[in-house]
Amino acid sequence: MSGPDTQTGTLWGVGVGPGDPELLTLKALGAIRACPVYAHFAKSGRPGNARGIAEPHLPENARELRLEYPFTIEVPLDDPRYPEEMAKFYDASAEHVAAELDAGNSVAVLCEGDPFLYGSYMYLHDRLAQRYETRVVPGVSGMSGCWTAANTPITHGDDVLTVLPGTLPESEMSSRIERTDAAVIMKVGRNLPKIASALSKAGRHQDATIVERGTMEGETVTRLSDWEEGRGAPYFSIVLVPGRKGIR
Amino acid sequence: MSGPDTQTGTLWGVGVGPGDPELLTLKALGAIRACPVYAHFAKSGRPGNARGIAEPHLPENARELRLEYPFTIEVPLDDPRYPEEMAKFYDASAEHVAAELDAGNSVAVLCEGDPFLYGSYMYLHDRLAQRYETRVVPGVSGMSGCWTAANTPITHGDDVLTVLPGTLPESEMSSRIERTDAAVIMKVGRNLPKIASALSKAGRHQDATIVERGTMEGETVTRLSDWEEGRGAPYFSIVLVPGRKGIR
Repeated sequence: MSGPDTQTGTLWGVGVGPGDPELLTLKALGAIRACPVYAHFAKSGRPGNARGIAEPHLPENARELRLEYPFTIEVPLDDPRYPEEMAKFYDASAEHVAAELDAGNSVAVLCEGDPFLYGSYMYLHDRLAQRYETRVVPGVSGMSGCWTAANTPITHGDDVLTVLPGTLPESEMSSRIERTDAAVIMKVGRNLPKIASALSKAGRHQDATIVERGTMEGETVTRLSDWEEGRGAPYFSIVLVPGRKGIR
Repeated sequence: MSGPDTQTGTLWGVGVGPGDPELLTLKALGAIRACPVYAHFAKSGRPGNARGIAEPHLPENARELRLEYPFTIEVPLDDPRYPEEMAKFYDASAEHVAAELDAGNSVAVLCEGDPFLYGSYMYLHDRLAQRYETRVVPGVSGMSGCWTAANTPITHGDDVLTVLPGTLPESEMSSRIERTDAAVIMKVGRNLPKIASALSKAGRHQDATIVERGTMEGETVTRLSDWEEGRGAPYFSIVLVPGRKGIR
């Protein structure tokens, strides 16, 4: 029923995990099934990763709200247009979702990995959580999917773990790697040569593994020392450096 | 059938997530249901956290293999008996599991959170993965459960995240917190006064939240600045310091 008495819908931020559709939680499944609308971010011309992961679980009669990024290529983070254009895009996306909620439709926002860990969902959450009833379902993170795919226990006992974006300057990356037991380096892509050099300077190159498409079709796991010179890596691959072994 | 032709069982390391039984993945559920034996670590006199989480999903006819820690109290990590006694305990635990695998029984080792992230499962994995067919199911981590419970997006954009044990010396903890955007501090318990002081020195005390029993019954979420002086915290509570906000 629409009209002045319509109850607003609930905003759900639903972590769908790292890639394998079997890595959705029971709670995520319940949330997706309870919402008449699912929303997801996607690049132009692409079906969207989060949607692809949730696909086998989407109710037949649910409506899709596709939130398409304004860039077909990566704009560097230091380009002044980047934060401005992205903020506008997230504002507009939030209003699309709000329109559904105002109409009384609960919306499941599908999020790769865990919504609160580097997720785009947070830009909706920051804009809408004060205005609407909001629930978040944590998910298996992309990095958990990757270290499991690589069969690499990442931290034991009292290891320090540092999660770094590959966008950091090389000297900063290298000194942070030197001071940690375990490291996860995200946003690899064209940053790979810099990452490899930072790992060498920190004395950890031999320990590093690169995982592409962890838990997904086409998954690859390669020791960084076996990586072909000049071979490109996708932006969303991850480099892993396991911690010390603790108690054996 | 037993006998010389018996196939050995498969070792499964199954992440059961942070506490809410609905945060098990479909894959974890499938693994638990496929194994005639489930194993779990537990403290003396306690039912075991991982078992408690998986309880609603355990098959009726599955057998329990309880792996009981040799200490009823926490032995400090710097006590020389600690690594020695724990290594003996993990050796013996691995042999209990191996006996089931040798008899052809697959074993689901139930692990709180994610098996490869600070999990006790790894001590079995390190001892058995070379000898038996082994599969690991990643889970929603305890820290994801906690930041979701606290309704706290932990990292945006290119934040650096540092995961620290509360056992670190105060000066080291403080300097690590100063140099990170977001921090997760584990193993809180009696380290809480030290952690609070390290956060103050790093100028982040006002941003910190402490979560006990995230996603479980009895969950509490408290701003650290509202924490009563002298109130104890359980060892497995977590302190969260969210990152910068990135693009708004």
